[in-house]
Amino acid sequence: MSDRPDTPLLDRVSRPADLKQFSDAQLVQLASELRAETISAVSVTGGHLGAGLGVVELTVALHAVFDTPRDKLIWDVSHQCYPHKILTGRRDRIRTLRQKDGLSGFTKRSESPYDPFGAAHSSTSISAALGFAVARDLGGNVPEGLGDAIAVIGDGSMSAGMAFEAMNNAGHLKKRLIVILNDNEMSIAPPVGAMSNYLSRLYAEEPFQDFKAAAKGAVSLLPEPFRAGAKRAKDILKGMTVGGTLFEELGFSYLGPIDGHDLHQLLPVLRTVRARATGPILIHAITKKGKGYAPAEAALDRGHATAKFDVVTGEQKKAPSNAPSYTSVFGKALVAEAERDDKIVAVTAAMPDGTGLNLFAERFPSRCFDVGIAEQHGVTFSAGLAAGGMKPFCAMYSTFLQRGYDQVVHDVAIQRLPVRFAIDRAGLVGADGATHAGAFDVAYLANLPGMVVMAAADEAELKHMVATAAAHDDGPIAFRYPRGEGAGVEMPEQGEVLEIGKGRMIQQGARVAILSFGTRLSEVRRAAESLEARGIRPTIADARFAKPLDEDLILRLAEDHEALITVEEGAIGGFGSHVAQLLAEKGVFDEGLKYRSMVLPDTFIDQASPADMYAVAGLNAEQIEAKVLDVLGVARLDEKRA
Amino acid sequence: MSDRPDTPLLDRVSRPADLKQFSDAQLVQLASELRAETISAVSVTGGHLGAGLGVVELTVALHAVFDTPRDKLIWDVSHQCYPHKILTGRRDRIRTLRQKDGLSGFTKRSESPYDPFGAAHSSTSISAALGFAVARDLGGNVPEGLGDAIAVIGDGSMSAGMAFEAMNNAGHLKKRLIVILNDNEMSIAPPVGAMSNYLSRLYAEEPFQDFKAAAKGAVSLLPEPFRAGAKRAKDILKGMTVGGTLFEELGFSYLGPIDGHDLHQLLPVLRTVRARATGPILIHAITKKGKGYAPAEAALDRGHATAKFDVVTGEQKKAPSNAPSYTSVFGKALVAEAERDDKIVAVTAAMPDGTGLNLFAERFPSRCFDVGIAEQHGVTFSAGLAAGGMKPFCAMYSTFLQRGYDQVVHDVAIQRLPVRFAIDRAGLVGADGATHAGAFDVAYLANLPGMVVMAAADEAELKHMVATAAAHDDGPIAFRYPRGEGAGVEMPEQGEVLEIGKGRMIQQGARVAILSFGTRLSEVRRAAESLEARGIRPTIADARFAKPLDEDLILRLAEDHEALITVEEGAIGGFGSHVAQLLAEKGVFDEGLKYRSMVLPDTFIDQASPADMYAVAGLNAEQIEAKVLDVLGVARLDEKRA
Repeated sequence: MSDRPDTPLLDRVSRPADLKQFSDAQLVQLASELRAETISAVSVTGGHLGAGLGVVELTVALHAVFDTPRDKLIWDVSHQCYPHKILTGRRDRIRTLRQKDGLSGFTKRSESPYDPFGAAHSSTSISAALGFAVARDLGGNVPEGLGDAIAVIGDGSMSAGMAFEAMNNAGHLKKRLIVILNDNEMSIAPPVGAMSNYLSRLYAEEPFQDFKAAAKGAVSLLPEPFRAGAKRAKDILKGMTVGGTLFEELGFSYLGPIDGHDLHQLLPVLRTVRARATGPILIHAITKKGKGYAPAEAALDRGHATAKFDVVTGEQKKAPSNAPSYTSVFGKALVAEAERDDKIVAVTAAMPDGTGLNLFAERFPSRCFDVGIAEQHGVTFSAGLAAGGMKPFCAMYSTFLQRGYDQVVHDVAIQRLPVRFAIDRAGLVGADGATHAGAFDVAYLANLPGMVVMAAADEAELKHMVATAAAHDDGPIAFRYPRGEGAGVEMPEQGEVLEIGKGRMIQQGARVAILSFGTRLSEVRRAAESLEARGIRPTIADARFAKPLDEDLILRLAEDHEALITVEEGAIGGFGSHVAQLLAEKGVFDEGLKYRSMVLPDTFIDQASPADMYAVAGLNAEQIEAKVLDVLGVARLDEKRA
Repeated sequence: MSDRPDTPLLDRVSRPADLKQFSDAQLVQLASELRAETISAVSVTGGHLGAGLGVVELTVALHAVFDTPRDKLIWDVSHQCYPHKILTGRRDRIRTLRQKDGLSGFTKRSESPYDPFGAAHSSTSISAALGFAVARDLGGNVPEGLGDAIAVIGDGSMSAGMAFEAMNNAGHLKKRLIVILNDNEMSIAPPVGAMSNYLSRLYAEEPFQDFKAAAKGAVSLLPEPFRAGAKRAKDILKGMTVGGTLFEELGFSYLGPIDGHDLHQLLPVLRTVRARATGPILIHAITKKGKGYAPAEAALDRGHATAKFDVVTGEQKKAPSNAPSYTSVFGKALVAEAERDDKIVAVTAAMPDGTGLNLFAERFPSRCFDVGIAEQHGVTFSAGLAAGGMKPFCAMYSTFLQRGYDQVVHDVAIQRLPVRFAIDRAGLVGADGATHAGAFDVAYLANLPGMVVMAAADEAELKHMVATAAAHDDGPIAFRYPRGEGAGVEMPEQGEVLEIGKGRMIQQGARVAILSFGTRLSEVRRAAESLEARGIRPTIADARFAKPLDEDLILRLAEDHEALITVEEGAIGGFGSHVAQLLAEKGVFDEGLKYRSMVLPDTFIDQASPADMYAVAGLNAEQIEAKVLDVLGVARLDEKRA
């Protein structure tokens, strides 16, 4: 890890303007050094490696040609931004990537003026860039000034409707806007969808081998000073194009495909575009994910996300796991259900591995659907499958299901269609930080009439909930579970169908009842152990359902205890709010109840380990214990004794 | 109104199968009768007229050629479904359209097996149809059987990313699927976006005058029995196409453009497609919104939505209004703010009239952006504008903002960008029913860190909130207001900037405090008047803010009263839940408080007048009064006396 690469040119770069000192040949060397530095940094932090390696040359070229931060460079998804961070004044902290108090693994406005628009979810960059372009033309005022707006977007991100919406609007508004399509034929998973096929055909029809000369030629043709105006510039750019009709039909000038790893193509093309472009232009660059690092290039996922690794061998240093991940438990449980029921189908939005559906896809290829980065369609497609008599499991991360929220309301809930939502990455997720937190799903699902909402307390519960969802045919049902390893509990042979709306008692105690929803249950148990040492044995229950609530259980807990505390891995408006509404309506508060609802706090929490993030959130065992002591008025007593 | 049109052929149709008895020439007459019946029905109910008139021939042709309900006919948005309802066994109830206990103004699964997938929001039809197509091929089982899947989608709906996502997936899966692009160059507003331009070009390049013969020719060419298989059918269909490359690049066979009002084109084309299509096919039909009814054709909005009207003159019978609509108050207030501040810009997603931004667009055309039916892009585009130093007002209906929810979270809230959300149609909306209810916005916005959430109690408050939002530059802010007329209060000369997080006292009373959030305030006042007659004078406060809460006000109300009741036009998880969380955390419940939170009930409420819908919801004055009496234990006393 201490073997830092030799980077004489990169050492002279503290900000992008320093790139202006270099010749094109030196920029080639700089790119090589930047690649080495990126590999070295990620080897000690872990993180997204392949995407960054694929845009090393593009990063150098963009910063060499454009004038950031006045020009707004917007990286789509932005997990490819590590080389960009190294060039934009953050090299000294690059080995803190994705660590607590370190650099974010994504672009972030609060981190640097060179990150004009943060990201982490896909396909937002063209919309944002168009916003900057319009603001520029209307006299918008920001400290760094407003120059060009440049979106760098991958081919995978192009499958999202949002990118189409943005292009449709940009093609209409005709503002100067630069979109770089970073086509590596590989997002997280192999590409799917007709757009992907289309891009492949563009490249197949006219590979860029001959384009280098053409690009140079076009540049040399340009009159200096430029007098012929917009029309001529457009003609020149047009003259350089091949194919690309789909983008041209949407009002973009199309330029490419070009070799995204060849600075002798990238630099002249970008210079020409910068000097001459009018209106929206799309530059189609072909790149290779993981480029220039053999272990990444050889990996199935092209080094998409990696643990810390040995730079020489590429071997990853993963901590041994004690329990299966929730994701794999879900995947296996669903396969088991699908063995018994041929109506079960599965839908993922470009995350077959991340959701565990890769197992399902292997076993039942014709029953598994990767719709691309297209949550809106994915949800309604699932609704259509359900209306057609199938049993769809729509597996999405909590944070990405937000993309299909209206479809959950309008197409699933209002029609009471039995779509099963498998919601992974519920709660705080660790290194991916605030943008990936699954904080809101319980709130935004549990108030939908007819929706059933469950949370698994451990991996055995998850298996039961998969079975419960498979059996539930009377309307939609959702179950949530976190990122990471299970609790290490014994796994049942077979998933058991749970009674809808019934929780379970974990232990009977006195004075205080803790009602847990989700995997905080293990922290609740730890808190209880510690409390027992103080002579307080809390009652513990696992709610299992946020909707419908187990009213009997909750009212009994309220009746039998001085205090009732709910604990959940979600924002306000979710489980605790539903419990409070029940208690209020039943008049339980009329006579007094020490009720508290422990939820995620009203802040976006930066990346750290999940445990550290939950400490910030105030939802770890110690804080649950403290809440109990506070509510019972014991803490102060304790402190008086001390 | 009693003058029903003469409809001898239509009288013989009680279900679509009855169309099989007619010759093509008779179908032409049937279409004419169907048009007359549609006009007659809407003249007594009001509703969406223009869209239905534009698809009369298409409706007849589809039901004549296909075998519904086995074949799944899915109308996008479905406000054009009135002729479809007349043909599918609902003619006897067609004059109850959009009325309480009557037919829905949209397709609805629970209403008829001929409505296999309901809609009301746009651009869902291709996703749903693809779901049916896949279910069919996988052996899905539904009572009516599973045949062809047919989506009818307008050109406006094609601007939504969701439609692109669905086509991208359909082009990849290659299932037999029929998409009819109903291109009337007019959705609700004039069309925007590059896609719309593209469709116009397709038509301009190859108008369909010569297509009629070609279509007939193609049919006559077909071998009977058909032996050459899929390949040949495709060739034949291909041979009929002109233009259409964008759709073909996405994997669809393209057929058209054809004249969507000429049954002699529609019938042979649909028959050919039904007999021969393999894979996904798009039929491009050119239609005219409002077709065949002069007053609609002449109207600017082509009779998009109409009140009851006189069939002969087309004159609409609108009730005189007593107060300006909230929508127009918003539009005018925003223009006034924008006169003073040239950084104010406005964004609408294809609803310039519905949101009141038509006023803004007239006054500041270069500062108003209609992005098309593209809420995802609209929100992030607004975020980009804000990042570029502008002050964007993103004006969307509550129910449609659900489409941009992830963008609100990811692009606006996490980055704390000062986007102003003007949320129209908050609460229950009347004739448009459950699909258009603005029930969830407070819940899904108020738990986002840094978001300010307001609700206007009346039109004067709305004007203040526009001014408050314009002045608020420290993060995002949202304000909600309902459909319909204001309360008739005196309007201030100028909007006043409200103090963030401060409510206002309306009247001081005793025993019970009613804390209102939004326009239920007038019902609360009515309830209070009635209560005063019983000797109970409640305290009334207008919260103004769901976030940040006015903690001082709320805790004071709790302290000074035996009971505290919150009232809002939203689902659980919103204002009342935030109040409950505050009261719990502050220990107010420990010693007892009669707290109740009146929210929308846990059901989707069918169309009726807003007042009737709120009666169903239990949020009218009488029900507020009853709640107060119940909480204070007065009602029972009363009843004992009686």
